[in-house]
Amino acid sequence: MSTAIFYHAGCPVCLGAEQLVANAIDRSKYQVEVVNLGEQAGRIGDAEDAGVKSVPALVLDDQVFHINFGASIDDLK
Amino acid sequence: MSTAIFYHAGCPVCLGAEQLVANAIDRSKYQVEVVNLGEQAGRIGDAEDAGVKSVPALVLDDQVFHINFGASIDDLK
Repeated sequence: MSTAIFYHAGCPVCLGAEQLVANAIDRSKYQVEVVNLGEQAGRIGDAEDAGVKSVPALVLDDQVFHINFGASIDDLK
Repeated sequence: MSTAIFYHAGCPVCLGAEQLVANAIDRSKYQVEVVNLGEQAGRIGDAEDAGVKSVPALVLDDQVFHINFGASIDDLK
């Protein structure tokens, strides 16, 4: 099973993307985790290590996809 | 069945996104169409009407998600 991590920060752009994009992912292929970096600041380092520059972002396996633009990860620190 | 249209232009950023993102979509929920605007210039108008500003982009139902940045749609005309 591959992993999909959807990082967001609770912003309106993030929530719209979460609702559609995260829910559109095939759960038979991906184990989906949704991480709100606004609430889980301890995960910011993981997100940065994965290459996340802004949220919302989707990490599929090891590849980062920045989806639209809600907030810079630097603004979440 | 909802519709998912993945617009791209054959650029490397596009192809990476297509491979992972388009294939990650749950085909039991979405009918997925992949449109290469470089080859199907007649679809550029549809993409613009949907709100696509750059590729790769994913349109889920009527909502546009710009994924990373490959090329501006203006550069495809």
